[in-house]
Amino acid sequence: MIVRDKPNLFQLFFTLRGSIVPLIFPQIVLIALLGTAVALTQEYFPSIFPSFTLAPLALLGVALSLFLGFRNNASYDRWWEARKQWGQLVVDARSLSRQLTTYITNDTDNGRQTQQLMVKLIIAFTHALRHHLRKSDPWTDITPYLPAAELVSLQRSKNLPDAILRLLGKYLAKAQEQGLLSDILSKCLDERITSMAQVQAACERIKHTPLPFAYMLLVHRTAYLYCFILPFGIVGTQGLFTPLFCAIVAYAFFGLDALSEELEDPFGLAANDLALTAMSRSIEINLLETLGETELPEPILPHNYLLQ
Amino acid sequence: MIVRDKPNLFQLFFTLRGSIVPLIFPQIVLIALLGTAVALTQEYFPSIFPSFTLAPLALLGVALSLFLGFRNNASYDRWWEARKQWGQLVVDARSLSRQLTTYITNDTDNGRQTQQLMVKLIIAFTHALRHHLRKSDPWTDITPYLPAAELVSLQRSKNLPDAILRLLGKYLAKAQEQGLLSDILSKCLDERITSMAQVQAACERIKHTPLPFAYMLLVHRTAYLYCFILPFGIVGTQGLFTPLFCAIVAYAFFGLDALSEELEDPFGLAANDLALTAMSRSIEINLLETLGETELPEPILPHNYLLQ
Amino acid sequence: MIVRDKPNLFQLFFTLRGSIVPLIFPQIVLIALLGTAVALTQEYFPSIFPSFTLAPLALLGVALSLFLGFRNNASYDRWWEARKQWGQLVVDARSLSRQLTTYITNDTDNGRQTQQLMVKLIIAFTHALRHHLRKSDPWTDITPYLPAAELVSLQRSKNLPDAILRLLGKYLAKAQEQGLLSDILSKCLDERITSMAQVQAACERIKHTPLPFAYMLLVHRTAYLYCFILPFGIVGTQGLFTPLFCAIVAYAFFGLDALSEELEDPFGLAANDLALTAMSRSIEINLLETLGETELPEPILPHNYLLQ
Amino acid sequence: MIVRDKPNLFQLFFTLRGSIVPLIFPQIVLIALLGTAVALTQEYFPSIFPSFTLAPLALLGVALSLFLGFRNNASYDRWWEARKQWGQLVVDARSLSRQLTTYITNDTDNGRQTQQLMVKLIIAFTHALRHHLRKSDPWTDITPYLPAAELVSLQRSKNLPDAILRLLGKYLAKAQEQGLLSDILSKCLDERITSMAQVQAACERIKHTPLPFAYMLLVHRTAYLYCFILPFGIVGTQGLFTPLFCAIVAYAFFGLDALSEELEDPFGLAANDLALTAMSRSIEINLLETLGETELPEPILPHNYLLQ
Amino acid sequence: MIVRDKPNLFQLFFTLRGSIVPLIFPQIVLIALLGTAVALTQEYFPSIFPSFTLAPLALLGVALSLFLGFRNNASYDRWWEARKQWGQLVVDARSLSRQLTTYITNDTDNGRQTQQLMVKLIIAFTHALRHHLRKSDPWTDITPYLPAAELVSLQRSKNLPDAILRLLGKYLAKAQEQGLLSDILSKCLDERITSMAQVQAACERIKHTPLPFAYMLLVHRTAYLYCFILPFGIVGTQGLFTPLFCAIVAYAFFGLDALSEELEDPFGLAANDLALTAMSRSIEINLLETLGETELPEPILPHNYLLQ
Repeated sequence: MIVRDKPNLFQLFFTLRGSIVPLIFPQIVLIALLGTAVALTQEYFPSIFPSFTLAPLALLGVALSLFLGFRNNASYDRWWEARKQWGQLVVDARSLSRQLTTYITNDTDNGRQTQQLMVKLIIAFTHALRHHLRKSDPWTDITPYLPAAELVSLQRSKNLPDAILRLLGKYLAKAQEQGLLSDILSKCLDERITSMAQVQAACERIKHTPLPFAYMLLVHRTAYLYCFILPFGIVGTQGLFTPLFCAIVAYAFFGLDALSEELEDPFGLAANDLALTAMSRSIEINLLETLGETELPEPILPHNYLLQ
Repeated sequence: MIVRDKPNLFQLFFTLRGSIVPLIFPQIVLIALLGTAVALTQEYFPSIFPSFTLAPLALLGVALSLFLGFRNNASYDRWWEARKQWGQLVVDARSLSRQLTTYITNDTDNGRQTQQLMVKLIIAFTHALRHHLRKSDPWTDITPYLPAAELVSLQRSKNLPDAILRLLGKYLAKAQEQGLLSDILSKCLDERITSMAQVQAACERIKHTPLPFAYMLLVHRTAYLYCFILPFGIVGTQGLFTPLFCAIVAYAFFGLDALSEELEDPFGLAANDLALTAMSRSIEINLLETLGETELPEPILPHNYLLQ
Repeated sequence: MIVRDKPNLFQLFFTLRGSIVPLIFPQIVLIALLGTAVALTQEYFPSIFPSFTLAPLALLGVALSLFLGFRNNASYDRWWEARKQWGQLVVDARSLSRQLTTYITNDTDNGRQTQQLMVKLIIAFTHALRHHLRKSDPWTDITPYLPAAELVSLQRSKNLPDAILRLLGKYLAKAQEQGLLSDILSKCLDERITSMAQVQAACERIKHTPLPFAYMLLVHRTAYLYCFILPFGIVGTQGLFTPLFCAIVAYAFFGLDALSEELEDPFGLAANDLALTAMSRSIEINLLETLGETELPEPILPHNYLLQ
Repeated sequence: MIVRDKPNLFQLFFTLRGSIVPLIFPQIVLIALLGTAVALTQEYFPSIFPSFTLAPLALLGVALSLFLGFRNNASYDRWWEARKQWGQLVVDARSLSRQLTTYITNDTDNGRQTQQLMVKLIIAFTHALRHHLRKSDPWTDITPYLPAAELVSLQRSKNLPDAILRLLGKYLAKAQEQGLLSDILSKCLDERITSMAQVQAACERIKHTPLPFAYMLLVHRTAYLYCFILPFGIVGTQGLFTPLFCAIVAYAFFGLDALSEELEDPFGLAANDLALTAMSRSIEINLLETLGETELPEPILPHNYLLQ
Repeated sequence: MIVRDKPNLFQLFFTLRGSIVPLIFPQIVLIALLGTAVALTQEYFPSIFPSFTLAPLALLGVALSLFLGFRNNASYDRWWEARKQWGQLVVDARSLSRQLTTYITNDTDNGRQTQQLMVKLIIAFTHALRHHLRKSDPWTDITPYLPAAELVSLQRSKNLPDAILRLLGKYLAKAQEQGLLSDILSKCLDERITSMAQVQAACERIKHTPLPFAYMLLVHRTAYLYCFILPFGIVGTQGLFTPLFCAIVAYAFFGLDALSEELEDPFGLAANDLALTAMSRSIEINLLETLGETELPEPILPHNYLLQ
């Protein structure tokens, strides 16, 4: 995620960090070159594109803006829903550790250990979910928070965050059996675990179900066809300015297209993706504070405007 | 569901897998032929379509884009809601088996058997729901997970997934009567069963209530009328390029139309439908792991980019 | 609801069942006649509409498509929400009878009778709600499912479905008093009754709160003004084809308008309304099956493609 | 709320009841007069507006339709959400009184009195909320339903509906203390009271948070600028018909604007506002029926098509 | 938030309070100056921009209105969601204090103190959340409502509102341990605390996750490019009126842009931001009234139409 104040007019046009221009530079150049070729041909052989007008372009433009608008809305909804799910995870993590540290008694060793164990498992779940979604290696981040006895069985699991949740559920059931919690409060805590399972399933849904492939084809093909026709449509009136206008229009349409594609999978490390690392760290700090720890890790700060 | 990376520019134009071009090829050809006929007529009898302009086309285009945009949004919402419902099923299946295996004691034979029986019934429900939605035969997939004693009565049922849920509810009530669960925890598990009933009803709703038939008529009729008028509208300015532009515009409009139609019923086996088989298998693996099984079935992988 | 496969190209243009053409035929003819009059006048007195162009038409068209698009979305949302509410009723009816037949013991006469009584009341509620929404006579459908002793007091009620729900609540409280259910499970069943009250209130809301009347006036007036100006706007360029184009444009705009109007109240018996009769019957069959009945009524099938 | 069948074509154009024409009549006349002035000037000094075209009008029209469309959607959403909240109040009022009259025993004097007292408080809440939202005097409507002992303290309250809910909560807690309700059922009833608090807060939100003021300025200024430019843009082609077209376009744009403004605060007494009086009365009748009363007040009927 | 009645026509055009004109004045002037330069150049060297037409402008306008429309919707949704979250806070604060003052007995000193302590903590949470979102100093507002013993530990906390919620949870658990509340009612109150944690997390989400930076770049760049091309596009037909039309179009597009930017972070002190101070004060008054206090602080009133 890019975190910076609004740039001034000069910066606005020359900022590359977070911009999608680098991604679509080849397309813009391609269309501008085509525009140049058409404009020069027209300049030297004025009668070669005599009767072309904007008519088909306008008709196709209606369809294209329909496609781009739809895809942009759908992608942004996915991005924002992903953010909401992580916001829900913040609530669940904070509330569950609040409940664990207040309803389970502090007075016995067993109670204290259960609190420690379970709150740490929630931290482990948070990191494990992030690595699961980014397909990166979780073990450095989570090993300190896992009970040593369970490490081997967790390593064999096919779905690590789900296995951690099951472990959390096991400890909860044990706490209830040992009389640390009444069954009503146990239900209350169980609801938070189910809610965390819901967050995980929603993130997996967004990660593993892209927009139907056919949309991608339809949008791209129509965008390219549109931009290939464009110079023929405007060369009659714009003359040698044709390449400039082609580049500007291509920037607007391909830019929205590329941005939609980036937002479609919001869990990556690209400039406009969600700052999952910073969010997990923030949950980690909150939960350690709940346990009364005083040596807390540092929050993640943006590096060159980029927060990951 | 098509699972593949973004194709390059060449592949983009020639990929047929997952594309809707094969579906609408007849329409494109029809409109292109009409365009050819009109262009040739105009070429040899230049004065035959003298006064036609784009005016009615532009007015009709506004209506058509309204219809197509609305229908596309509605169809995509159905597709995405269907995916969300299956995501909810993932949560319910995982959470219910987590709860069954932690709250019901493992120490007695009866407890262990109840766990086994009920978790397997959840797997059976998942497969049964998929086959129910696809109107295919469920018995091969689900028989191993059903208690032999109930097989006959289930086979007589008019709505198999619903009957399995009722059976699940019966075992839950029995477990509570036998003292394996307190009534509070029993309520907690019952909520998951109700949530699974909700998933089923929502899928049945999407399956059995298509968009109002009149929309389909309205969209199709307007699209055809538009494309039939199109060549007359542009032949005056585009001359012999008329068939090309007709084909491109027809591709964009009929393409969106055909894709909307495919997404409207997301439970089929078409290229852009949901990967229900893979999702049920993934639930199956998760739940067997919860039971501590070590011989797990293989996950379903995409075949020629297509995941079903 | 119209239930049929996609018609072929020929059927597409000549299907009247489920189409809104019959509803808007007078408007189309009116506009076409006006178009004919204008075209003929122009033919014989060519200089009478000399300076008219499309400008005001295009400006008004923007407003009209805004109105029609908004109204169509709002009406479809009402229709789809109504369908969702009935889907929720399916869940509530199925879940409540599942809970009644599993949590209330089967072993005593009293338990069995309570099960029978309450599940039948749910069926009665379903039919009563349908008749309430359609303002038709419910007694033939519901009398067999009502306890004879309550018939008189129900007949005096001002809001029959609400009175049935109250009766259901009374039996539930009685069952709890008699010890057939613990208070926790009783709360669990009570939530389903409240959910059914929610379905009823939502259906009543959709039924009794149409879109603000002023929208209807605004949409209709603008649509008529647009279509009255239309022939003057296009006669200069389209000549004798004016009536044809007028009819097509009128079809598109008035068609969407009429369809929106039909969907606005989704509980009627029109071709695009919801199949409430079939859904109530399907709930009836499900619930009788839950009670172990073997003589079940037949499901409702579409008649001439129309499912009611 | 206007309640009437669809008017015929003649009525359609001349109905004023519920129409927004009276509200925007001054604007329409103003624009038409400006159009007349421009048209006459053009008639006598044909060369005075020589080069004006529709270009800036079309560009501004895009922005204007964006603004009007957005504002209309936002206002309608507020109106419909307000209606949904009152629908939720119907559910809460009906369900809470159903629960009160079934779970609290009828056999003791205390039980009967508690039922009476609390159900009447719900009626009082409904009326009080309506008057709170309309800033009218509630005491005539609610005094008969309030316990005389609490009247004074309620009259001092700064937020009457909230004070009634607190009173309802106090009686509920008392009922539980006296053993009329178990604590589980008490929680069940408490959820309904919280839900009524939610309805109140949502209505207050809609009432006290209008759309940002800057939108209003932006929409109005753009609409006026657009309509002031309009006659200059079309006089070249429409001649003496300019005032007519100006009036029609002004009707469409200002009409939508005025309607959005009316819907933005849906709790008033204007023609398109919600029928809160009728809804409160209907809740009143339902709840008195629940208490077994036989002398019920009459439902509110529309007066000259207007239901308040 | 601006609170005022609809201004009359004269005020409408000259109101600056709450308007976004002051924010975008530099852009409007810049575009108008460019328009002047182009118009004068055209006046003296008529042949210098001979062939420019509106074509590229119209094509780019489609993209621009797509971007502005999307961004406006997204920003307004954030603003309205933020308002809804604060509405939920109103419900939670009112309901939790209602429950505290009715379910915890008033008869013992301990009970009364617990009520006082906890209701005051809710007030402190409200103020702390507001200051947290506005990054301002909370201590003046909240110190009177905090227990002196906890002051030091709260001052060390990294996330003050979260720490207050944890404290609230601690007192709740203590109340339950001391037998002031049954565990079922305790769960009921705990749900409200979790709901307040949800409000906080949602507000933090809106505060710390702006729209993807790339949108901002895309919208601004396209808007500037559009307005830079604009005078060349219209000077051919509008002549010396070019600067006027440029300024009007720039006002409409940059105005919507600036307003979207202001609404994107709704927690500030700008004219169109939410009136958090007034809302917190209103909660404060409500809750003190619940405790039976009679000396209540004054509600916040708008100052020069501005309510903060």
